Amino acid sequence: MESKREIKHILVVKFNEGATEQQIEECIKQFCNLVDLVPSIKAFKWGKEMGIVNLNQGFTHVFEATFESAEDVAAYVSNPNHANYASLLMPLVEKFVVLDFEPVGKPQP
Amino acid sequence: MESKREIKHILVVKFNEGATEQQIEECIKQFCNLVDLVPSIKAFKWGKEMGIVNLNQGFTHVFEATFESAEDVAAYVSNPNHANYASLLMPLVEKFVVLDFEPVGKPQP
Repeated sequence: MESKREIKHILVVKFNEGATEQQIEECIKQFCNLVDLVPSIKAFKWGKEMGIVNLNQGFTHVFEATFESAEDVAAYVSNPNHANYASLLMPLVEKFVVLDFEPVGKPQP
Repeated sequence: MESKREIKHILVVKFNEGATEQQIEECIKQFCNLVDLVPSIKAFKWGKEMGIVNLNQGFTHVFEATFESAEDVAAYVSNPNHANYASLLMPLVEKFVVLDFEPVGKPQP
C-alpha cells in the first residue's frame, strides 16, 4: 500500500468586480461547509491576497486543501458536493487557477 | 509588539517552453540557496504542478515561503539576494503570479 503523502490542492480566484462582500463571504462559508462533506480533505485554509507586492495579476483569494493522495484529490473534484459548490462559486469568479503539488523542501546535496 | 503571524508567500510560475530541465533544476536549487540567505523565511517548500485536474492555465511550479509578518515579506522582496535570484529566474519564466495570504480555517459560526 502506498504510504501517506501530502498533496496541496490550491485554488486561486479573482472574484468579479460585481461580486459583493456578502456574496464572497457566503461563498467562503459554503466552501468551508463543503470541506465538512468530503472526509478525504485532511486540512483546509483560505486567505485574502494581501497586496504586499503588486504582482497578484488581479487574483484576490487563495483556497488550500490538503489531501493524502492524487486519487483523493480526483475523488474530491468528482464529488457531487464539489459540483454543487462550483455552480455557486463560478458565476462570481472572473478567472481562476487550480494547482496540485506535493511540497518538497531543499533537495539533498 | 505584534504577535507572530503566519503569512504564506506563494510564487506560481510557468517556465518557458525553451527552459531545459537542467535550467529549471538549477533555478530551484538557487531558490533553495536563497532561502538560506534570508533568515526571515521560516519555512520553504516547492512542488511541480501535478496535472490532476486540467485547470492549471499553463502554470508548472509552485514555490511557497512562510513568514511571520508582512514586514518580513517586504524585507525579503527588497533583499539584494532576492533581486539577484529574480534576474536568474525571470529570463526562464513565461508568466508568474505572487500571492501573499494569512491562512485561516473555517470561520466561527
